[in-house]
Amino acid sequence: MRPKAVVLLSGGLDSATALAVARERGFDCYALSFRYGQRHAVELDCAAVQAQQQQACDHVIIDIDLRLFGGSALTADIDVPKDRSQHDISTGIPITYVPARNTIFLSYALAWAEVLAAQNMFIGVNVLDYSGYPDCRPEFIRSFERTANLATRAGVEGADPMCIQTPLIDLSKADIIRLGTRLDVDYAFTISCYDPLEGGAPCGGCDSCVLRAKGFAEAGLDDPLVRRFLP
Amino acid sequence: MRPKAVVLLSGGLDSATALAVARERGFDCYALSFRYGQRHAVELDCAAVQAQQQQACDHVIIDIDLRLFGGSALTADIDVPKDRSQHDISTGIPITYVPARNTIFLSYALAWAEVLAAQNMFIGVNVLDYSGYPDCRPEFIRSFERTANLATRAGVEGADPMCIQTPLIDLSKADIIRLGTRLDVDYAFTISCYDPLEGGAPCGGCDSCVLRAKGFAEAGLDDPLVRRFLP
Repeated sequence: MRPKAVVLLSGGLDSATALAVARERGFDCYALSFRYGQRHAVELDCAAVQAQQQQACDHVIIDIDLRLFGGSALTADIDVPKDRSQHDISTGIPITYVPARNTIFLSYALAWAEVLAAQNMFIGVNVLDYSGYPDCRPEFIRSFERTANLATRAGVEGADPMCIQTPLIDLSKADIIRLGTRLDVDYAFTISCYDPLEGGAPCGGCDSCVLRAKGFAEAGLDDPLVRRFLP
Repeated sequence: MRPKAVVLLSGGLDSATALAVARERGFDCYALSFRYGQRHAVELDCAAVQAQQQQACDHVIIDIDLRLFGGSALTADIDVPKDRSQHDISTGIPITYVPARNTIFLSYALAWAEVLAAQNMFIGVNVLDYSGYPDCRPEFIRSFERTANLATRAGVEGADPMCIQTPLIDLSKADIIRLGTRLDVDYAFTISCYDPLEGGAPCGGCDSCVLRAKGFAEAGLDDPLVRRFLP
Protein backbone atom coordinates (compact mmCIF):
# COMPACT_ATOMS: atom_id res chain seq x y z
CA MET A 1 0.00 0.00 0.00
CA ARG A 2 1.33 3.41 -0.94
CA PRO A 3 1.66 5.99 1.80
CA LYS A 4 -0.92 8.77 1.85
CA ALA A 5 -0.34 12.50 1.70
CA VAL A 6 -2.67 15.45 2.06
CA VAL A 7 -1.82 18.07 -0.55
CA LEU A 8 -2.99 21.67 -0.29
CA LEU A 9 -4.23 22.49 -3.76
CA SER A 10 -5.23 26.06 -4.51
CA GLY A 11 -5.48 25.74 -8.25
CA GLY A 12 -2.41 27.91 -8.65
CA LEU A 13 0.76 27.01 -10.45
CA ASP A 14 2.75 26.23 -7.31
CA SER A 15 0.30 23.88 -5.63
CA ALA A 16 -0.34 22.02 -8.90
CA THR A 17 3.40 21.42 -9.05
CA ALA A 18 3.53 20.37 -5.41
CA LEU A 19 0.84 17.79 -6.14
CA ALA A 20 2.89 16.42 -9.03
CA VAL A 21 5.93 16.13 -6.77
CA ALA A 22 3.94 14.32 -4.09
CA ARG A 23 2.74 11.88 -6.70
CA GLU A 24 6.25 11.38 -8.07
CA ARG A 25 7.47 10.65 -4.54
CA GLY A 26 5.07 7.73 -4.40
CA PHE A 27 2.19 9.09 -2.35
CA ASP A 28 -1.50 8.47 -2.77
CA CYS A 29 -2.64 12.07 -2.79
CA TYR A 30 -5.66 13.60 -1.05
CA ALA A 31 -6.17 17.09 -2.42
CA LEU A 32 -7.57 19.79 -0.17
CA SER A 33 -8.91 23.13 -1.37
CA PHE A 34 -10.73 26.00 0.27
CA ARG A 35 -13.55 28.28 -0.73
CA TYR A 36 -12.68 31.19 1.51
CA GLY A 37 -14.45 34.15 0.05
CA GLN A 38 -11.70 34.74 -2.47
CA ARG A 39 -12.78 36.82 -5.42
CA HIS A 40 -11.21 34.42 -7.86
CA ALA A 41 -13.25 31.25 -7.41
CA VAL A 42 -11.97 30.19 -10.84
CA GLU A 43 -9.04 28.86 -8.79
CA LEU A 44 -11.27 26.08 -7.51
CA ASP A 45 -12.18 24.99 -11.03
CA CYS A 46 -8.49 24.67 -11.77
CA ALA A 47 -7.95 22.75 -8.52
CA ALA A 48 -10.64 20.28 -9.55
CA VAL A 49 -9.05 19.80 -12.97
CA GLN A 50 -5.63 19.26 -11.38
CA ALA A 51 -6.98 16.77 -8.85
CA GLN A 52 -8.57 14.80 -11.65
CA GLN A 53 -5.69 15.01 -14.13
CA GLN A 54 -3.22 14.02 -11.46
CA GLN A 55 -5.40 11.19 -10.15
CA ALA A 56 -5.84 12.36 -6.58
CA CYS A 57 -7.65 9.71 -4.51
CA ASP A 58 -10.02 12.35 -3.22
CA HIS A 59 -10.52 16.10 -3.50
CA VAL A 60 -12.28 17.91 -0.68
CA ILE A 61 -13.23 21.58 -0.87
CA ILE A 62 -13.78 23.18 2.51
CA ASP A 63 -15.94 26.26 2.91
CA ILE A 64 -14.43 28.76 5.25
CA ASP A 65 -15.60 32.31 5.59
CA LEU A 66 -12.74 34.58 6.49
CA ARG A 67 -14.90 37.52 5.38
CA LEU A 68 -16.48 37.43 8.82
CA PHE A 69 -13.19 38.80 10.06
CA GLY A 70 -12.42 41.17 7.17
CA GLY A 71 -8.91 42.46 6.71
CA SER A 72 -7.54 41.49 3.26
CA ALA A 73 -7.75 42.49 -0.37
CA LEU A 74 -8.45 38.90 -1.37
CA THR A 75 -11.52 38.67 0.80
CA ALA A 76 -12.72 42.23 1.30
CA ASP A 77 -13.57 45.13 -0.93
CA ILE A 78 -10.11 46.57 -1.34
CA ASP A 79 -8.65 47.04 -4.80
CA VAL A 80 -5.87 44.67 -5.74
CA PRO A 81 -2.81 46.69 -6.74
CA LYS A 82 -1.91 46.39 -10.40
CA ASP A 83 -0.56 48.18 -13.41
CA ARG A 84 2.14 49.92 -11.45
CA SER A 85 4.70 51.52 -13.69
CA GLN A 86 7.56 49.13 -12.98
CA HIS A 87 5.56 46.06 -11.97
CA ASP A 88 7.92 45.81 -9.05
CA ILE A 89 7.09 43.33 -6.36
CA SER A 90 6.09 45.11 -3.20
CA THR A 91 8.34 45.08 -0.25
CA GLY A 92 6.70 44.56 3.09
CA ILE A 93 3.53 42.59 3.54
CA PRO A 94 1.19 42.92 0.56
CA ILE A 95 -2.37 43.97 1.15
CA THR A 96 -3.33 40.68 -0.47
CA TYR A 97 -2.12 38.94 2.69
CA VAL A 98 -4.95 36.97 4.28
CA PRO A 99 -4.63 36.78 8.07
CA ALA A 100 -3.48 33.40 9.30
CA ARG A 101 -4.50 31.76 6.04
CA ASN A 102 -1.82 29.10 5.86
CA THR A 103 -2.24 28.36 9.56
CA ILE A 104 -5.92 27.65 8.96
CA PHE A 105 -5.24 25.66 5.78
CA LEU A 106 -2.57 23.53 7.43
CA SER A 107 -4.84 22.94 10.43
CA TYR A 108 -7.49 21.44 8.20
CA ALA A 109 -4.84 19.44 6.37
CA LEU A 110 -3.68 18.13 9.73
CA ALA A 111 -7.20 17.07 10.69
CA TRP A 112 -7.61 15.17 7.45
CA ALA A 113 -4.14 13.66 7.69
CA GLU A 114 -4.94 12.36 11.13
CA VAL A 115 -8.19 10.78 10.00
CA LEU A 116 -6.45 9.21 6.98
CA ALA A 117 -3.45 8.13 9.06
CA ALA A 118 -1.36 10.08 6.58
CA GLN A 119 1.97 11.28 7.90
CA ASN A 120 2.71 13.71 5.13
CA MET A 121 1.29 17.02 4.06
CA PHE A 122 2.44 18.96 1.02
CA ILE A 123 2.26 22.72 0.63
CA GLY A 124 3.60 24.69 -2.31
CA VAL A 125 5.09 27.61 -0.43
CA ASN A 126 8.01 29.22 -2.09
CA VAL A 127 10.92 31.57 -1.48
CA LEU A 128 9.28 34.20 -3.69
CA ASP A 129 6.34 34.41 -1.31
CA TYR A 130 8.01 34.57 2.00
CA SER A 131 9.45 37.99 1.74
CA GLY A 132 5.86 39.15 1.72
CA TYR A 133 3.73 36.57 3.49
CA PRO A 134 4.87 35.67 6.99
CA ASP A 135 3.08 32.32 6.87
CA CYS A 136 5.12 31.16 3.88
CA ARG A 137 8.45 31.32 5.68
CA PRO A 138 10.36 28.11 6.38
CA GLU A 139 10.51 28.91 10.10
CA PHE A 140 6.71 29.12 10.16
CA ILE A 141 6.37 25.77 8.41
CA ARG A 142 8.80 24.07 10.78
CA SER A 143 7.04 25.58 13.79
CA PHE A 144 3.65 24.44 12.52
CA GLU A 145 5.08 20.97 12.04
CA ARG A 146 6.22 20.86 15.66
CA THR A 147 2.80 22.08 16.75
CA ALA A 148 1.12 19.46 14.58
CA ASN A 149 3.05 16.72 16.29
CA LEU A 150 1.96 17.97 19.69
CA ALA A 151 -1.64 18.43 18.56
CA THR A 152 -2.39 14.94 17.44
CA ARG A 153 -2.28 11.29 18.32
CA ALA A 154 1.19 11.16 16.80
CA GLY A 155 2.57 13.27 19.62
CA VAL A 156 0.88 11.34 22.37
CA GLU A 157 1.27 7.81 21.25
CA GLY A 158 4.77 8.05 19.87
CA ALA A 159 3.69 7.17 16.36
CA ASP A 160 5.69 8.29 13.37
CA PRO A 161 5.72 12.05 13.27
CA MET A 162 3.78 14.26 10.90
CA CYS A 163 5.90 15.85 8.20
CA ILE A 164 5.14 18.97 6.18
CA GLN A 165 6.85 18.73 2.83
CA THR A 166 7.66 21.93 0.97
CA PRO A 167 9.23 20.75 -2.26
CA LEU A 168 9.19 24.18 -3.90
CA ILE A 169 10.51 26.22 -1.04
CA ASP A 170 13.88 27.11 -2.53
CA LEU A 171 12.96 27.12 -6.20
CA SER A 172 12.64 30.10 -8.46
CA LYS A 173 9.42 30.45 -10.43
CA ALA A 174 11.28 29.29 -13.54
CA ASP A 175 12.59 26.23 -11.66
CA ILE A 176 9.06 25.39 -10.50
CA ILE A 177 7.76 25.64 -14.05
CA ARG A 178 10.58 23.44 -15.37
CA LEU A 179 9.93 20.88 -12.65
CA GLY A 180 6.19 20.80 -13.24
CA THR A 181 6.63 20.63 -17.00
CA ARG A 182 8.89 17.60 -16.57
CA LEU A 183 6.16 16.03 -14.39
CA ASP A 184 3.49 16.75 -17.02
CA VAL A 185 1.56 19.36 -15.06
CA ASP A 186 -0.97 20.96 -17.38
CA TYR A 187 -0.41 24.62 -16.54
CA ALA A 188 -3.24 25.64 -18.87
CA PHE A 189 -5.45 24.73 -15.92
CA THR A 190 -3.74 26.67 -13.19
CA ILE A 191 -4.42 30.25 -12.29
CA SER A 192 -2.13 32.67 -10.53
CA CYS A 193 -3.92 35.99 -11.08
CA TYR A 194 -5.17 37.89 -8.03
CA ASP A 195 -8.00 39.46 -10.00
CA PRO A 196 -9.05 37.43 -13.06
CA LEU A 197 -11.27 38.85 -15.77
CA GLU A 198 -14.73 37.52 -16.59
CA GLY A 199 -14.38 33.95 -17.80
CA GLY A 200 -11.23 33.37 -15.76
CA ALA A 201 -8.58 34.97 -17.97
CA PRO A 202 -5.61 36.39 -16.07
CA CYS A 203 -5.46 40.19 -15.79
CA GLY A 204 -1.79 40.23 -16.76
CA GLY A 205 -1.11 43.21 -14.53
CA CYS A 206 -1.05 42.07 -10.92
CA ASP A 207 2.12 41.05 -9.08
CA SER A 208 1.25 37.40 -9.44
CA CYS A 209 0.65 37.57 -13.21
CA VAL A 210 3.93 39.42 -13.63
CA LEU A 211 5.85 36.84 -11.59
CA ARG A 212 4.31 34.04 -13.59
CA ALA A 213 5.09 35.62 -16.97
CA LYS A 214 8.66 36.22 -15.85
CA GLY A 215 8.94 32.58 -14.74
CA PHE A 216 7.77 31.19 -18.05
CA ALA A 217 10.06 33.57 -19.93
CA GLU A 218 13.07 32.49 -17.85
CA ALA A 219 12.18 28.85 -18.32
CA GLY A 220 12.01 29.46 -22.07
CA LEU A 221 8.44 28.17 -22.24
CA ASP A 222 5.12 29.57 -23.37
CA ASP A 223 2.43 29.80 -20.73
CA PRO A 224 -0.36 27.47 -21.87
CA LEU A 225 -2.82 29.44 -19.74
CA VAL A 226 -2.19 32.55 -21.81
CA ARG A 227 -2.50 30.47 -24.95
CA ARG A 228 -5.83 29.10 -23.72
CA PHE A 229 -7.27 32.60 -23.52
CA LEU A 230 -5.84 33.95 -26.75
CA PRO A 231 -8.54 35.14 -29.14
CA MET B 1 -8.98 52.06 25.18
CA ARG B 2 -9.11 48.60 26.68
CA PRO B 3 -7.02 45.91 25.03
CA LYS B 4 -8.87 43.35 22.94
CA ALA B 5 -8.91 39.59 23.33
CA VAL B 6 -10.40 36.83 21.23
CA VAL B 7 -12.02 34.23 23.48
CA LEU B 8 -12.87 30.73 22.28
CA LEU B 9 -16.37 30.13 23.59
CA SER B 10 -17.86 26.68 23.19
CA GLY B 11 -20.83 27.16 25.46
CA GLY B 12 -19.30 24.78 27.96
CA LEU B 13 -18.53 25.47 31.58
CA ASP B 14 -14.82 25.98 31.05
CA SER B 15 -14.94 28.45 28.19
CA ALA B 16 -17.68 30.48 29.92
CA THR B 17 -15.32 30.78 32.87
CA ALA B 18 -12.39 31.68 30.63
CA LEU B 19 -14.50 34.50 29.16
CA ALA B 20 -15.23 35.80 32.66
CA VAL B 21 -11.52 35.75 33.49
CA ALA B 22 -10.65 37.63 30.29
CA ARG B 23 -13.21 40.25 31.19
CA GLU B 24 -11.92 40.51 34.75
CA ARG B 25 -8.41 41.00 33.39
CA GLY B 26 -9.63 44.11 31.60
CA PHE B 27 -10.05 42.93 28.04
CA ASP B 28 -12.73 43.85 25.56
CA CYS B 29 -13.77 40.36 24.55
CA TYR B 30 -14.53 39.01 21.08
CA ALA B 31 -16.18 35.62 21.46
CA LEU B 32 -15.60 32.97 18.83
CA SER B 33 -17.65 29.79 18.47
CA PHE B 34 -17.83 27.03 15.90
CA ARG B 35 -20.61 25.03 14.34
CA TYR B 36 -18.59 21.99 13.43
CA GLY B 37 -21.08 19.24 12.95
CA GLN B 38 -21.25 18.51 16.66
CA ARG B 39 -24.35 16.65 17.68
CA HIS B 40 -24.97 19.00 20.54
CA ALA B 41 -25.72 22.30 18.84
CA VAL B 42 -27.37 23.36 22.10
CA GLU B 43 -23.81 24.38 23.03
CA LEU B 44 -24.06 27.27 20.60
CA ASP B 45 -27.22 28.55 22.26
CA CYS B 46 -25.37 28.59 25.54
CA ALA B 47 -22.41 30.34 23.90
CA ALA B 48 -24.74 33.07 22.63
CA VAL B 49 -26.24 33.54 26.09
CA GLN B 50 -22.78 33.74 27.66
CA ALA B 51 -21.56 36.25 25.09
CA GLN B 52 -24.55 38.43 25.79
CA GLN B 53 -24.56 38.08 29.58
CA GLN B 54 -20.84 38.76 29.73
CA GLN B 55 -21.05 41.71 27.34
CA ALA B 56 -18.73 40.46 24.62
CA CYS B 57 -18.14 43.18 22.00
CA ASP B 58 -18.92 40.69 19.27
CA HIS B 59 -19.75 37.01 18.92
CA VAL B 60 -18.92 35.24 15.68
CA ILE B 61 -19.97 31.68 14.94
CA ILE B 62 -17.91 30.00 12.25
CA ASP B 63 -19.26 27.12 10.26
CA ILE B 64 -16.71 24.41 9.77
CA ASP B 65 -17.49 20.96 8.53
CA LEU B 66 -15.14 18.43 10.02
CA ARG B 67 -17.60 15.72 9.02
CA LEU B 68 -16.05 15.82 5.56
CA PHE B 69 -13.08 14.12 7.20
CA GLY B 70 -14.95 11.83 9.59
CA GLY B 71 -13.13 10.27 12.50
CA SER B 72 -14.76 11.27 15.80
CA ALA B 73 -17.71 10.42 17.98
CA LEU B 74 -18.63 14.08 18.24
CA THR B 75 -18.98 14.48 14.51
CA ALA B 76 -19.68 11.02 13.15
CA ASP B 77 -22.14 8.26 13.86
CA ILE B 78 -20.31 6.57 16.66
CA ASP B 79 -21.99 6.09 20.02
CA VAL B 80 -20.71 8.25 22.83
CA PRO B 81 -19.60 6.02 25.70
CA LYS B 82 -21.75 6.40 28.79
CA ASP B 83 -23.31 4.60 31.72
CA ARG B 84 -20.19 2.61 32.39
CA SER B 85 -20.31 0.89 35.75
CA GLN B 86 -17.71 3.02 37.50
CA HIS B 87 -18.04 6.21 35.46
CA ASP B 88 -14.29 6.21 35.39
CA ILE B 89 -12.61 8.65 33.06
CA SER B 90 -11.02 6.81 30.17
CA THR B 91 -7.33 6.56 29.94
CA GLY B 92 -5.84 7.06 26.53
CA ILE B 93 -7.42 9.26 23.90
CA PRO B 94 -11.21 9.22 24.09
CA ILE B 95 -13.17 8.44 20.97
CA THR B 96 -14.76 11.85 21.43
CA TYR B 97 -11.45 13.38 20.35
CA VAL B 98 -11.93 15.53 17.24
CA PRO B 99 -8.84 15.53 15.02
CA ALA B 100 -6.88 18.76 15.20
CA ARG B 101 -9.88 20.59 16.62
CA ASN B 102 -8.05 23.03 18.86
CA THR B 103 -5.48 23.67 16.14
CA ILE B 104 -8.27 24.70 13.80
CA PHE B 105 -10.07 26.73 16.45
CA LEU B 106 -6.91 28.58 17.47
CA SER B 107 -6.08 29.24 13.82
CA TYR B 108 -9.37 31.04 13.34
CA ALA B 109 -8.86 32.88 16.62
CA LEU B 110 -5.47 33.97 15.34
CA ALA B 111 -6.96 35.27 12.10
CA TRP B 112 -9.52 37.31 13.97
CA ALA B 113 -6.96 38.53 16.50
CA GLU B 114 -4.78 39.77 13.70
CA VAL B 115 -7.63 41.65 12.05
CA LEU B 116 -8.64 43.18 15.38
CA ALA B 117 -5.03 43.94 16.33
CA ALA B 118 -5.70 41.91 19.46
CA GLN B 119 -2.63 40.40 21.08
CA ASN B 120 -4.44 38.02 23.35
CA MET B 121 -6.42 34.87 22.84
CA PHE B 122 -8.12 32.95 25.64
CA ILE B 123 -8.84 29.24 25.61
CA GLY B 124 -10.36 27.28 28.46
CA VAL B 125 -8.20 24.18 28.24
CA ASN B 126 -7.67 22.39 31.48
CA VAL B 127 -5.52 19.80 33.18
CA LEU B 128 -8.46 17.39 33.27
CA ASP B 129 -8.58 17.35 29.49
CA TYR B 130 -5.01 16.94 28.59
CA SER B 131 -4.55 13.41 29.73
CA GLY B 132 -7.01 12.56 26.99
CA TYR B 133 -6.85 15.23 24.34
CA PRO B 134 -3.39 15.91 22.94
CA ASP B 135 -4.35 19.40 21.78
CA CYS B 136 -5.20 20.51 25.31
CA ARG B 137 -1.68 20.03 26.65
CA PRO B 138 0.35 23.04 27.76
CA GLU B 139 3.18 22.08 25.40
CA PHE B 140 0.73 22.16 22.49
CA ILE B 141 -0.55 25.59 23.49
CA ARG B 142 2.97 27.01 23.84
CA SER B 143 3.97 25.55 20.49
CA PHE B 144 0.90 27.00 18.80
CA GLU B 145 1.75 30.36 20.34
CA ARG B 146 5.22 30.24 18.82
CA THR B 147 3.74 29.26 15.48
CA ALA B 148 1.20 32.08 15.73
CA ASN B 149 3.97 34.60 16.17
CA LEU B 150 5.72 33.30 13.07
CA ALA B 151 2.49 33.19 11.07
CA THR B 152 1.45 36.77 11.38
CA ARG B 153 2.48 40.36 11.00
CA ALA B 154 3.59 40.26 14.64
CA GLY B 155 6.45 37.96 13.76
CA VAL B 156 7.59 39.92 10.74
CA GLU B 157 7.26 43.45 11.90
CA GLY B 158 8.49 42.96 15.44
CA ALA B 159 5.19 44.06 16.95
CA ASP B 160 4.15 42.89 20.39
CA PRO B 161 3.79 39.12 20.35
CA MET B 162 0.58 37.17 20.36
CA CYS B 163 -0.20 35.51 23.66
CA ILE B 164 -2.47 32.54 24.29
CA GLN B 165 -3.89 32.76 27.78
CA THR B 166 -5.02 29.56 29.48
CA PRO B 167 -6.33 30.74 32.85
CA LEU B 168 -7.88 27.37 33.75
CA ILE B 169 -5.01 25.14 32.80
CA ASP B 170 -4.01 24.04 36.29
CA LEU B 171 -7.39 24.23 37.99
CA SER B 172 -9.54 21.34 39.12
CA LYS B 173 -13.15 21.34 37.95
CA ALA B 174 -14.19 22.45 41.45
CA ASP B 175 -11.68 25.33 41.32
CA ILE B 176 -13.03 26.41 37.93
CA ILE B 177 -16.58 26.38 39.26
CA ARG B 178 -15.58 28.38 42.34
CA LEU B 179 -13.74 30.90 40.17
CA GLY B 180 -16.62 31.32 37.74
CA THR B 181 -19.14 31.56 40.53
CA ARG B 182 -17.10 34.38 42.07
CA LEU B 183 -17.12 36.10 38.66
CA ASP B 184 -20.91 35.69 38.33
CA VAL B 185 -20.89 33.18 35.50
CA ASP B 186 -24.41 31.86 35.04
CA TYR B 187 -23.69 28.15 34.77
CA ALA B 188 -27.38 27.44 34.11
CA PHE B 189 -26.53 28.42 30.55
CA THR B 190 -23.50 26.26 29.99
CA ILE B 191 -23.55 22.71 28.75
CA SER B 192 -20.92 20.05 29.25
CA CYS B 193 -22.76 16.93 28.12
CA TYR B 194 -21.43 15.05 25.10
CA ASP B 195 -24.90 13.78 24.19
CA PRO B 196 -27.73 15.98 25.49
CA LEU B 197 -31.33 14.82 25.53
CA GLU B 198 -34.11 16.44 23.50
CA GLY B 199 -34.50 20.00 24.72
CA GLY B 200 -30.87 20.27 25.76
CA ALA B 201 -30.93 18.54 29.14
CA PRO B 202 -27.65 16.82 30.08
CA CYS B 203 -27.66 13.02 29.88
CA GLY B 204 -26.01 12.71 33.27
CA GLY B 205 -24.10 9.63 32.23
CA CYS B 206 -21.26 10.64 29.94
CA ASP B 207 -17.73 11.34 31.18
CA SER B 208 -18.28 15.05 30.88
CA CYS B 209 -21.52 15.06 32.90
CA VAL B 210 -19.86 12.97 35.58
CA LEU B 211 -16.86 15.30 35.80
CA ARG B 212 -19.15 18.30 36.04
CA ALA B 213 -21.30 16.78 38.78
CA LYS B 214 -18.20 15.85 40.74
CA GLY B 215 -16.88 19.40 40.35
CA PHE B 216 -20.03 21.00 41.69
CA ALA B 217 -20.14 18.52 44.55
CA GLU B 218 -16.54 19.26 45.52
CA ALA B 219 -17.19 22.98 45.28
CA GLY B 220 -20.18 22.51 47.60
CA LEU B 221 -22.53 24.08 45.05
CA ASP B 222 -25.66 23.00 43.24
CA ASP B 223 -25.42 22.90 39.46
CA PRO B 224 -27.92 25.48 38.20
CA LEU B 225 -28.08 23.65 34.87
CA VAL B 226 -29.46 20.55 36.58
CA ARG B 227 -31.87 22.76 38.49
CA ARG B 228 -33.01 24.36 35.23
CA PHE B 229 -34.06 20.99 33.87
CA LEU B 230 -35.69 19.62 37.02
CA PRO B 231 -39.36 18.77 36.49
